[in-house]
Amino acid sequence: MKVMTHPLLTKHRDTLDRALAAIAGRGYFSIYPESPSPRVYGENAAADGKADFELSLGERFVIDQPGDHEYLATEKSPFGTRLDVEYPRARPEALIEAATAAWPAWRGTDPATRAAVCIEILQHIHEHVFTMANAVHFTTGQPFVMAFQAGGPHALDRGLEAVAYGYFEQTRTPAVAYWEKPAGKGQVLAMEKRYIVAPRGVGLVIGCNTFPTWNSYPGLFASLVTGNPVIVKPHPGAVLPLALTVRYAREVLAGAGFDPNLVTLAAEAPEDRIAAELACHPKVKVVDFTGSSYFGNWLEDNARQAAVYTEKAGVNTIVIDSTDDFKGLCRNLAFTLCLYSGQMCTTSQAIFLPAEGIETPDGHLSADEVIAGICAAVDKLCADPAKAVELLGAIVTPQVAERIDNAAALGETVLASRALDHPSYPDARVRTPLLLKVTADARKSYGSECFGPVSFFVTTDNTTESLNLVRDVVGEQGALTMGVYSTDPTVLTAAEGVACEVAVHLSCNLTGGVFVNQTSAFSDFHGSGGNPAANASLVDGAFVTGRFRAIESRRHVEPRPSNGSA
Amino acid sequence: MKVMTHPLLTKHRDTLDRALAAIAGRGYFSIYPESPSPRVYGENAAADGKADFELSLGERFVIDQPGDHEYLATEKSPFGTRLDVEYPRARPEALIEAATAAWPAWRGTDPATRAAVCIEILQHIHEHVFTMANAVHFTTGQPFVMAFQAGGPHALDRGLEAVAYGYFEQTRTPAVAYWEKPAGKGQVLAMEKRYIVAPRGVGLVIGCNTFPTWNSYPGLFASLVTGNPVIVKPHPGAVLPLALTVRYAREVLAGAGFDPNLVTLAAEAPEDRIAAELACHPKVKVVDFTGSSYFGNWLEDNARQAAVYTEKAGVNTIVIDSTDDFKGLCRNLAFTLCLYSGQMCTTSQAIFLPAEGIETPDGHLSADEVIAGICAAVDKLCADPAKAVELLGAIVTPQVAERIDNAAALGETVLASRALDHPSYPDARVRTPLLLKVTADARKSYGSECFGPVSFFVTTDNTTESLNLVRDVVGEQGALTMGVYSTDPTVLTAAEGVACEVAVHLSCNLTGGVFVNQTSAFSDFHGSGGNPAANASLVDGAFVTGRFRAIESRRHVEPRPSNGSA
Repeated sequence: MKVMTHPLLTKHRDTLDRALAAIAGRGYFSIYPESPSPRVYGENAAADGKADFELSLGERFVIDQPGDHEYLATEKSPFGTRLDVEYPRARPEALIEAATAAWPAWRGTDPATRAAVCIEILQHIHEHVFTMANAVHFTTGQPFVMAFQAGGPHALDRGLEAVAYGYFEQTRTPAVAYWEKPAGKGQVLAMEKRYIVAPRGVGLVIGCNTFPTWNSYPGLFASLVTGNPVIVKPHPGAVLPLALTVRYAREVLAGAGFDPNLVTLAAEAPEDRIAAELACHPKVKVVDFTGSSYFGNWLEDNARQAAVYTEKAGVNTIVIDSTDDFKGLCRNLAFTLCLYSGQMCTTSQAIFLPAEGIETPDGHLSADEVIAGICAAVDKLCADPAKAVELLGAIVTPQVAERIDNAAALGETVLASRALDHPSYPDARVRTPLLLKVTADARKSYGSECFGPVSFFVTTDNTTESLNLVRDVVGEQGALTMGVYSTDPTVLTAAEGVACEVAVHLSCNLTGGVFVNQTSAFSDFHGSGGNPAANASLVDGAFVTGRFRAIESRRHVEPRPSNGSA
Repeated sequence: MKVMTHPLLTKHRDTLDRALAAIAGRGYFSIYPESPSPRVYGENAAADGKADFELSLGERFVIDQPGDHEYLATEKSPFGTRLDVEYPRARPEALIEAATAAWPAWRGTDPATRAAVCIEILQHIHEHVFTMANAVHFTTGQPFVMAFQAGGPHALDRGLEAVAYGYFEQTRTPAVAYWEKPAGKGQVLAMEKRYIVAPRGVGLVIGCNTFPTWNSYPGLFASLVTGNPVIVKPHPGAVLPLALTVRYAREVLAGAGFDPNLVTLAAEAPEDRIAAELACHPKVKVVDFTGSSYFGNWLEDNARQAAVYTEKAGVNTIVIDSTDDFKGLCRNLAFTLCLYSGQMCTTSQAIFLPAEGIETPDGHLSADEVIAGICAAVDKLCADPAKAVELLGAIVTPQVAERIDNAAALGETVLASRALDHPSYPDARVRTPLLLKVTADARKSYGSECFGPVSFFVTTDNTTESLNLVRDVVGEQGALTMGVYSTDPTVLTAAEGVACEVAVHLSCNLTGGVFVNQTSAFSDFHGSGGNPAANASLVDGAFVTGRFRAIESRRHVEPRPSNGSA
């Protein structure tokens, strides 16, 4: 039964072990440098990556997978630049067949080898990190540095985290155990029990328009490491980052001696609706989805043959009770509201504060003074268009831009949204955040997700009411993030109580370089799975346990003389 | 933040640690002796337990829980003896309210304390193991020794196993982590992150008529240890074992300083259908069910607000290819077919063998000779009614007895079912197994579950066809167990391949004291969750990960000077 160690396992064993230690310790861990600096990546890396990205533009994307028969281009850059990459229009049945045919050898190999191949894929993607950064930047509208970080290293971190969880979960039960039970009169019953990982079947990863890699890598690598082939269905608006991902994955799989069809791309025209068709296919056993609550709930209700992991929409909240650093509060929240024009699923939408104002080191501030301070900080970040676009990025679709304009009627405008001219891309859709003020009873305004740079200051009777509203709104609509500002430990404890009740992760008194809308793989969970915004958490045990089963095969063996019973 | 160690944790820490080691090593482990011998339990234990059991008969069951207003007796012993225990007819809303009110202190305590309280409950049940054995014996029809073992120690093993998995899963993420990220220029971002276990909500355990404790304890203790209150809904035919369980649990909870309403009993008249009502209640977040595929599937489809764990029906199979111990094969299979009159969810129903017969150490045996050998072994076990009833027990309901009679038309009878007179209970329903012979194309006969002592010999072209039929039948109907007999390693490997494909646990060449229908907690999985017979496995990671969420609370702290970044 001795199996030769795969060379990639020799190469990546240490990385795997460090990742396993990281998910147990939950301190800071990353092996993919997040700074795009030439000092880290070399003088030519940025330019080479840009050039490599540009090679794809206006061309047919080369990916040799079954069923390719027709090509289509669906992406439109939020920066107004030309993309025109043509992808093969997927035929679902051909992809399922190819995945099923590729499956046995992958299913039959051991979890450690699968983990090593996954880590090699991550490394191979990382070798093209600047290509990827440009692909994410130009398809999603993310500012470049963010596209580099969130689309590259941070997405890779989340992928490696999923590999670690998946590997751990498969190996927590040993491959073989010896079992010996006393049977009376000095006799024993002795058995050898083998536990075999039985992967579930074809995995489907449905990507989103705004974070094509970051939100897809956990599901992709969790399914892959647990032995399932994966069909990657990108959003028609952000295909290239996942098409590149699939290409790099296929290159590594083939090089490692596996069938590249373990990972395929399912590009489509928006009207094709192949996500729904694939998700309900009897051979598809795992579905990972990021996107609208409507389709996420539909998948949960209809893809019943599969384990379905969803991240949907919600209402992220901030409770301001008091602070010992008002300037820090303003700077921190302003950054959160501006980053990628609030188009993160983690951006705060409803900011609750007492109508009577709050205490600060500079004395009491009225609610309007607090609001004015935050608005001023946002204004400052957006003052210089050249700097602002490096934070705001671009508005992902015309629909989101329209939503900003329509939202102005939902409350009192305390900061109007402005269109900015992008210094490099004249056709880019750049908008500053719209900030509105409403009262607690305006639940219809602030109480459901308004995706994009629109946030609400909600004045309340007091912090108790603020927390009650968080409980109500998040309990009903869900949320991925919650923040609280208070100098009072009892308020922080009460906020933690509410956070636990509605299963949302809490950030307390962020006034520096950590932001409520950002999480750090290996340490922070993203989503909890316990409220309507997501039925899963990135990444925890529950995210991987449903992707395979442990099957036991037992037979009698000779009792081992040296091994007495317990 | 220092919490005093609960005295029960001091008492049970060692047991918890040993259980944790056992789920990792998967060797033999049990702390509840399975022999009812006076040498183990004391001279008077059996008589005292019987007397204690008899105290309940004909009486109103005393259990002081909210909402009691009306009493009913629903149990009828398969042995024809009088039970007439009256239980409070549950009012679902009152139980939900009581569970919700009891929840906060339990939710707020730490996983180790919850584990210790659970272990104390298991120990307290164990102190009444003979009471429980009689309750299981007289309500289910299990033979006494089996009722003692499966209803007592083996059920407790499974409960402890669930406690270990639940504790492990809650504590694999540390309670607190220090996170420090380089922020450039020698600066760091430093945070303390707390991870809080957020239990999901009210758990519901729906028991079955045949294994009220064994099948309920995993869900009961998995939900309880992960911080959820539990409502226990027994089958109306087997209430007493779970009523006693609830009573003992409530005694321990109250003694440990918790609200006893964390565990309540939901007895009902069969027409009340409170299982469906409770399962779909918005506050019920976890459902554990053992019973029919019809209702199990209904729960999976309808209790969408909850994590639903089901064990349903299937077609368990045996493939006979060849053997090096034909007598052992016959004895072993005969025991499996007779034990509790085949009324185990793990009993083999379809036994595939080549029509041309098999090779044995005594030479070639025709299919009819193989069948005759197994029938003779069954006959031998049932020859002496006094001995037979200690193996067969009684038929749980008149419906099962009817099914035996109707099944005779499904094939060629190779061993007729006989009614036996029970030496102690004249009204007991005792029946020997009905064994039928059919050909491979009689899928309508052998290919769906026929609960009770009815099994089919299915003749096939060869072992390849046998394995193909297993794949088809189990893929469609599900199964909890599969057995194979072969002297050919390639056949065993092929059988393992099929077992993995349809996610069923495999037993190879059982000819001694281990039986395909029995599993050993801490070592054997029961069900895989990967085929239609069950969506969960007793007990693995997936069985516990959905019962709580880890919620994070993070805040900045001063960087630790000694702790450099990774």
